[in-house]
Amino acid sequence: MSGPTESTVDATVDVPSGRPARTATPAPGDPGLARLSLNQKTTDRWSVAEAVAGCVRAGLPAIGLWREPVRAIGAAAAARLVADAGLRVSSLCRGGFLTAADPVARARALDDNRRAIEEAAEVGAACLVLVVGGLPEGSRDLAGARERAADGIAELVPYAARHGVRLGLEPMHPIFCADRGVLSTLGQALDLAERFPAEQVGVVVDTFHVWWDPDVLAQIARARGRIVSFQVCDWITPLPPDALLSRGMMGDGHIDFRLLRRAVEAAGYAGDIEVEIFNADVWAADPDAVVATLSRRHVAEVLDD
Amino acid sequence: MSGPTESTVDATVDVPSGRPARTATPAPGDPGLARLSLNQKTTDRWSVAEAVAGCVRAGLPAIGLWREPVRAIGAAAAARLVADAGLRVSSLCRGGFLTAADPVARARALDDNRRAIEEAAEVGAACLVLVVGGLPEGSRDLAGARERAADGIAELVPYAARHGVRLGLEPMHPIFCADRGVLSTLGQALDLAERFPAEQVGVVVDTFHVWWDPDVLAQIARARGRIVSFQVCDWITPLPPDALLSRGMMGDGHIDFRLLRRAVEAAGYAGDIEVEIFNADVWAADPDAVVATLSRRHVAEVLDD
Repeated sequence: MSGPTESTVDATVDVPSGRPARTATPAPGDPGLARLSLNQKTTDRWSVAEAVAGCVRAGLPAIGLWREPVRAIGAAAAARLVADAGLRVSSLCRGGFLTAADPVARARALDDNRRAIEEAAEVGAACLVLVVGGLPEGSRDLAGARERAADGIAELVPYAARHGVRLGLEPMHPIFCADRGVLSTLGQALDLAERFPAEQVGVVVDTFHVWWDPDVLAQIARARGRIVSFQVCDWITPLPPDALLSRGMMGDGHIDFRLLRRAVEAAGYAGDIEVEIFNADVWAADPDAVVATLSRRHVAEVLDD
Repeated sequence: MSGPTESTVDATVDVPSGRPARTATPAPGDPGLARLSLNQKTTDRWSVAEAVAGCVRAGLPAIGLWREPVRAIGAAAAARLVADAGLRVSSLCRGGFLTAADPVARARALDDNRRAIEEAAEVGAACLVLVVGGLPEGSRDLAGARERAADGIAELVPYAARHGVRLGLEPMHPIFCADRGVLSTLGQALDLAERFPAEQVGVVVDTFHVWWDPDVLAQIARARGRIVSFQVCDWITPLPPDALLSRGMMGDGHIDFRLLRRAVEAAGYAGDIEVEIFNADVWAADPDAVVATLSRRHVAEVLDD
């Protein structure tokens, strides 16, 4: 673990690929970093304090927080850490999991989401990311799960509004439809979001989840005023054995990031670009090296040439 | 390997789950088998002759053939085997892979598809299934790959028409967008199919590929007159490590088969229901036990109660 001012990273090698870095690491203050956010799941072994320090060392102005590490120190302490470091909180991940049919499980889920809303307010997150949940154990009623997710969102919106928290509905890649998120396309997420005012419910555009969608550019255009978060990571092949950890570093896979970034910007999004990578090889690497690589790749793969 | 008249299968245990069978195996002549087809990939270790014999033993009236085993004995010999057994050929899998940007690779792919069309005509397949192909190595131009696939189809249609072969465009689950098929939804497949007469180009509805799609029922209704094949297998979790082998036996996963079968029937489809399972555990089981299990599950999970 490095302190906030030192970094012993080898800036000439990309992780996890092990390939030579093709560009220099942008230094703190570089305009290429102006909107770059580290989703802390990308450096999974770092605590909030460590991730905040890592962002400061690398010159990243924003961080995406996760509830578990935030609760490990308390939302108030997390809020102080990011405020003292001068970071924006681009998102809090995550609420949702609202598809239970059982009334007790449903009440528990709603209650947990109210806590998530309170935490998002306390850390000053630009949005609370919601992953709506998959099919309940043993159920094949996909339409029913989708309806219950929508009902749950409707129940949470007034609470979120009272706390000044914007909800972000995250469509998930269809690979996760059964077990994580029955919201499968951006169009479907917008159908749901549009039932509510844009300042209360928006959508999360995560390249990993939406890149394959033949309708993605039209739906991003439709999402004007509703895009609350833009998250990036790559689709790599062969797909790693654990589908949950199958995300890649930008540039290691098949996604055209510029195309999607330009589309969200054309739709009015000017917020942070958050790098969120679930991947065992990324997690095994030195977190400072991960941040250095994603900073380089952000400039080389996501921003304009 | 069993001969055509003997079966030594334990009919009380489902494979690959190992769970007790919940219903009796339908005997040859059972009306529940009247439209059931064995896609021979489901019993991957069987040759055409063995798969044909397996269908006859179990009372299945149809088979879906694959090009590689067909070519191992020649299309004429394969045609004789199925004709002598009195089986229908519900499909020939598969042509496609038309996304190459390189002119030489593209010409080779088109040529291979012409051979596939000839083989489909010779074995009397109800359709030639086309998997359009993924992104070429190193390319991130998804729109370009989709255009080239469409151009390739257009080039093949007259040849298929001359041979009396109906082409079936198979939308593939987005998990395969990068490496197998850039045709990702039924709606997108129909957009392409509708450029051609329905008797020449239709779509394949495979439950594994389309079950997650929020728009699937509307698109199946739209597909009236264009559904050339209905294939079934389940989406299981956790997803097996090899995504290509992640398909499950009907009833072992999350798909509501009745919903989708009723939808294709309401759209006018009255053809065979083909069981196509790529799964290492299924392939490791006794093929006769696989056919017995899928016959039971077909009646219990796919047909009406």
